[in-house]
Amino acid sequence: MKKIMNRPEDFAVETVEGIIAAYGDKVKLLNADPQIYLSNYPTREGKVGIVTAGGSGHLPVFLGYVGQGMLDGCAVGNVFASPSAQKMADMITACDRGNGVLCLYGNYGGDKLNFDMACEMVEMEDIETRTVLVKDDLASSPLEAREKRRGVAGMVYAFKVAGACADKGMSLDEVADMAQKALDNIRTIGVALSPCVVPMVGKPSFSIADDEIEVGMGIHGEPGIEVRKMMTADEIADDIISRIETEIPLSSGDEVSIMVNGLGATPIEEQLIVYRRIHKILSDKAVSIFMPHIGEFATSMEMAGLSITVFKLDGELKQCLAAPACTPFYTNHNK
Amino acid sequence: MKKIMNRPEDFAVETVEGIIAAYGDKVKLLNADPQIYLSNYPTREGKVGIVTAGGSGHLPVFLGYVGQGMLDGCAVGNVFASPSAQKMADMITACDRGNGVLCLYGNYGGDKLNFDMACEMVEMEDIETRTVLVKDDLASSPLEAREKRRGVAGMVYAFKVAGACADKGMSLDEVADMAQKALDNIRTIGVALSPCVVPMVGKPSFSIADDEIEVGMGIHGEPGIEVRKMMTADEIADDIISRIETEIPLSSGDEVSIMVNGLGATPIEEQLIVYRRIHKILSDKAVSIFMPHIGEFATSMEMAGLSITVFKLDGELKQCLAAPACTPFYTNHNK
Repeated sequence: MKKIMNRPEDFAVETVEGIIAAYGDKVKLLNADPQIYLSNYPTREGKVGIVTAGGSGHLPVFLGYVGQGMLDGCAVGNVFASPSAQKMADMITACDRGNGVLCLYGNYGGDKLNFDMACEMVEMEDIETRTVLVKDDLASSPLEAREKRRGVAGMVYAFKVAGACADKGMSLDEVADMAQKALDNIRTIGVALSPCVVPMVGKPSFSIADDEIEVGMGIHGEPGIEVRKMMTADEIADDIISRIETEIPLSSGDEVSIMVNGLGATPIEEQLIVYRRIHKILSDKAVSIFMPHIGEFATSMEMAGLSITVFKLDGELKQCLAAPACTPFYTNHNK
Repeated sequence: MKKIMNRPEDFAVETVEGIIAAYGDKVKLLNADPQIYLSNYPTREGKVGIVTAGGSGHLPVFLGYVGQGMLDGCAVGNVFASPSAQKMADMITACDRGNGVLCLYGNYGGDKLNFDMACEMVEMEDIETRTVLVKDDLASSPLEAREKRRGVAGMVYAFKVAGACADKGMSLDEVADMAQKALDNIRTIGVALSPCVVPMVGKPSFSIADDEIEVGMGIHGEPGIEVRKMMTADEIADDIISRIETEIPLSSGDEVSIMVNGLGATPIEEQLIVYRRIHKILSDKAVSIFMPHIGEFATSMEMAGLSITVFKLDGELKQCLAAPACTPFYTNHNK
């Protein structure tokens, strides 16, 4: 498998250099550190900070959402590796405007360990933090063990809601509670068709047969629920929506946002064919769709496949989703 | 190779159904015909229409740019196949607001034949047309045979300029001349790492060895300039920029827009690593970059690779590029 890169060990840093070269009006580095990434927009004193962190290799997650109306900062590690607690602490400190910082990130062991340490470190500087873990991947653990679930593309909706709440001037507790409320109404399941290649490894980390598809695979190649013979687009949509409906039942009059997220190598056409089916399933139930998100929001480099996220809305969540945002990979001028 | 689809023969139509389901506020079909696609925004009487046409399988080209500030209409065929002259004629007629229609499309045999017929057909209805062919692919023919060159990702810039000129109230001749002026300052070269699969064919239409890259390959897999051993990201950027500079020399004080366009399966990270190098090459020459475009603008389904487009600007072209637009896959609120 071929990658367009220079030295594998420079992959993550050179990606960040590309982002700063392209979007330096929106984002900047803290002290030229390519692992600590901040909004370049002026931030109102007193605004609650919204931050995240995680490994590289998932663009637009995470860096792509730093800017206005979503994240204030992000610490980023090497490909699929957590950044250190010290980097996270420096980033949190830089994002505090006096009223605390929400740490909103995917439920992965390394990120959790380091973020917990970072929160203790900044507590010494009297910076208040709250943590909300994203665990939207329904396929990663059964309901009775949902605390173990991983965070995937649904985190983008959570960034959006938290960012909007912070912009509105809510307190840290209020913002955290709203992010949690959003996540309680968000579920994601993905399917993978082919693996990805970690640059420093140089070969696929797993394999999927030419006539097979894996339902529920994680964004680092974590095992899913089942390996099946290749499914049609309609079968994929039907299967995932029915699995998500076991936890978020939908009925006439409900309103949702739907994210069809390409994992990296999946053509836009295929994403749209799947969306078309979801639209039909929901229209048939008289469930309406608000602000569909179709494209690449959380990827795994050259992995082929996609994920479907259902975000059930109420008036408050809908208003947050519709609020303006301006980041390198997510813009909403609410027009 | 696996594709997320239903019946191969429904691939193009179901893609359009997905677009209409997702972006029905921006775009609509003419008489429910999935091959004739119109802006859903109100259009001022007297505005010059801007239209294009071509085969499916290149999203966001072409459908993704119909809306406000770019294209008024588009006829679309099956995957990699031209739509009929009749569909084009119906589409042109629907886009005329009394002052004629610019047909702005890639220089491919089938499209050209059908568009020429379509223009004759609408002439009987007293609809004036002008044609500007996109031939930005420098690699597809040498300079002395530039009339044979194909149109690739640079067409997106041409859509943007033409759309902005039409919105400003320019006449058909003025709009066509500005589109041509833009194209005189636009060159593109692509590299391909892997082939794509036409749904009805079901297997790759060509092959590239595991350690090779093809420079100059077309978006339907047309042969390029040379097959080489795999190059680094910096080598790709250096090679393409120096080839483009043989026709568009750049020097201190010049201003350009740069498009790094993923062909479908290329990770965002890789696109950014290439952009980073282009930014460095141009910064070192004191050439400034305005509105970089990084992402998927003109694809070939699951083809891996990318293209680089240089668009040399003057004050007038820059203003057109910066003008507002709102389409399913291209939004600029000029903020």
